[in-house]
Amino acid sequence: MTTIDIPPGSLYGTANLPYGVFSTPGTKPRVGVRVGDSVVDLAVALGDDVFARPSLNPFMAQGHGRWVEVRRQITALVTGDVPAAAVHPVAEVTMHLPFEVADYVDFYASEHHASNLGRLFRPDAEPLLPNWKHLPVGYHGRAGTVVVSGTEIVRPCGQRKAPAESVPTFGESRRLDIEAELGFVVGTGSPLGSAVPGEEFAKRVFGAVLVNDWSARDIQAWEYVPLGPFLGKSFATSVSPWVVPLLALHDARVRTPVQDPPPLPYLIEREPWGLDIDLAVSWNGHEVSRPPYREMYWSPAQMLAHLTVNGASTRTGDLFASGTISGPDKSQRGAFIELTWGGKEPIDVGGEQRTFLADGDEVVITGTAPGAGGERIGFGEVRGRILPATEAKR
Amino acid sequence: MTTIDIPPGSLYGTANLPYGVFSTPGTKPRVGVRVGDSVVDLAVALGDDVFARPSLNPFMAQGHGRWVEVRRQITALVTGDVPAAAVHPVAEVTMHLPFEVADYVDFYASEHHASNLGRLFRPDAEPLLPNWKHLPVGYHGRAGTVVVSGTEIVRPCGQRKAPAESVPTFGESRRLDIEAELGFVVGTGSPLGSAVPGEEFAKRVFGAVLVNDWSARDIQAWEYVPLGPFLGKSFATSVSPWVVPLLALHDARVRTPVQDPPPLPYLIEREPWGLDIDLAVSWNGHEVSRPPYREMYWSPAQMLAHLTVNGASTRTGDLFASGTISGPDKSQRGAFIELTWGGKEPIDVGGEQRTFLADGDEVVITGTAPGAGGERIGFGEVRGRILPATEAKR
Repeated sequence: MTTIDIPPGSLYGTANLPYGVFSTPGTKPRVGVRVGDSVVDLAVALGDDVFARPSLNPFMAQGHGRWVEVRRQITALVTGDVPAAAVHPVAEVTMHLPFEVADYVDFYASEHHASNLGRLFRPDAEPLLPNWKHLPVGYHGRAGTVVVSGTEIVRPCGQRKAPAESVPTFGESRRLDIEAELGFVVGTGSPLGSAVPGEEFAKRVFGAVLVNDWSARDIQAWEYVPLGPFLGKSFATSVSPWVVPLLALHDARVRTPVQDPPPLPYLIEREPWGLDIDLAVSWNGHEVSRPPYREMYWSPAQMLAHLTVNGASTRTGDLFASGTISGPDKSQRGAFIELTWGGKEPIDVGGEQRTFLADGDEVVITGTAPGAGGERIGFGEVRGRILPATEAKR
Repeated sequence: MTTIDIPPGSLYGTANLPYGVFSTPGTKPRVGVRVGDSVVDLAVALGDDVFARPSLNPFMAQGHGRWVEVRRQITALVTGDVPAAAVHPVAEVTMHLPFEVADYVDFYASEHHASNLGRLFRPDAEPLLPNWKHLPVGYHGRAGTVVVSGTEIVRPCGQRKAPAESVPTFGESRRLDIEAELGFVVGTGSPLGSAVPGEEFAKRVFGAVLVNDWSARDIQAWEYVPLGPFLGKSFATSVSPWVVPLLALHDARVRTPVQDPPPLPYLIEREPWGLDIDLAVSWNGHEVSRPPYREMYWSPAQMLAHLTVNGASTRTGDLFASGTISGPDKSQRGAFIELTWGGKEPIDVGGEQRTFLADGDEVVITGTAPGAGGERIGFGEVRGRILPATEAKR
């Protein structure tokens, strides 16, 4: 047996206990929980084979009561003695995609982001469209191209047409961007033909991850009318490897900003599910933005209520993301197209003037939130480096 | 042993041999092939456990060479003696969703449909948007709500705002519609970061199904800007239970209509993959439309090439549908919003003047194509009845 050292100020103390899927050299991926700078192998520590699987889905499908029980078991375990064979230094493990993504939905829940994008994509119109304050606008993305942090991102090719060009050309994206978001993972699904009211959010949603919704703005701008973004987004969406349980986010709950006009009854938030999470975006090691999740207009409980109000079913592993998190200040914008105002106002990145992503660039998004007992809890990071477009695609 | 009778003029002769997943009372779903009015249990007939599974995915994942080989084995089998235990009358089996849907993409490939919808949704603008003739416009739909023919469709609720109303109201859809489409099922996937050229279409795509993309036009019209259709479509998408192998569609291949302007090189169709398939739409037993697939502007090989040109991976079980099939004539329109011109020109349905779907209505879409040796082959049908909205959703 051994004890786990939690360094003072660690973002992975007992208030957090995020779940992930890890492997060590020569072993198969399985479920672990992060404690300090260690990963605890739950199949070994708890003797339950549901954790010997390469994804969180079987455990998540066991439901909320079981999530509470296992969190209690883990808390007892890591504050006492742990079987030595169950403990691995986090620096020595490889992290994998933590869950099988069923359906992936991306919302557009930041008023600041939606207003900025409206000004940039439709300069001659009102920035917010008439529906925006009545419902959380969202769309389906590609579940099969959700990848774990660290996966390298090949610059996509596609059709692009600048406003001044008369016909589109084919080639690599020249306006490759990020979107810093938070994603919510459905633990237990709901049947076809029934809606999930906002009050069931905490019962249905297992936890949250950081999301980088990589975006090729030139491809997106040409293709997106009238059916929405498609190839400008579908080449890759990165998520952080640690799923922070919703059970760890109680102390982060805040009211959303005032919603005016008041939403329709099915969207009224009876308990607050705004979240006081601070994100940070670094570009080649230089921090360029600090998006505040607490500024999001629509809460994730409202997103889930909206997503299912037409009777759409949900499944274990559904991922719904918030959309780009942007605050009111320029330093709080979660996408480079906003930070550089469509590429017209380059920003300083370690002494270089930059607009969109160059080959070799690396972006890291991190996030922290207040946890129980005054502890600060961490979401880990979602990291990705841009590889050049491949010849085969031209 | 027994022999299988194929009635003269059957749409399920040896030129077709579509695959599905069936069960008989008290048994588990497994893979069968339809021959005449019989279903042949392939696990029993061929002694291969890949067919004892409740979905076609494991067989599809074995690849094109194997699809050719099994089709040859089945042809030899059904023209000779078959183990009696492997043969079930089609009237005595229950059909299930034939494959696990990985990602679902819906295109918009009919020029007639896109032009009609453009006129209806954006009456003051050019009906076809500037990108439409340069690329097959498409978007992701909800994979988890793809259901098999026969599944009853609960009328969705949601936000609707008529142009004359100042604010949206919540309630059941008053403009519930269909979209008659053809869907293509990916058999073998492709890795992240690589494009699938049009020439690999027949190697990657296993077969085709009929699709009814149920659409709540009032919900869709209010929500769809700027990120595309979401709840107006995500409550249900029905597919026919029989997957017609692409190997059966050789004699249906035709050139697409002339594409002008010529598409970019990655979209040039080197071998024709237009398809001469006749669909028919019946509403409460009355035929109301005959959409011709041969009129589709973009071919399914072009759709797959476009879908992956940004490096998006594909998976076994990916479904991509054509979008509504509408021909140039009014009698060939594949959606009621087009047939009734936005509900302003009711049509005769068995003596009643109708616009959109009423509770209790049933829609059946069928399709046939030329097969080998002068045989006509059938896609079966995709059928659905509308149930009233449920109280719980209001």
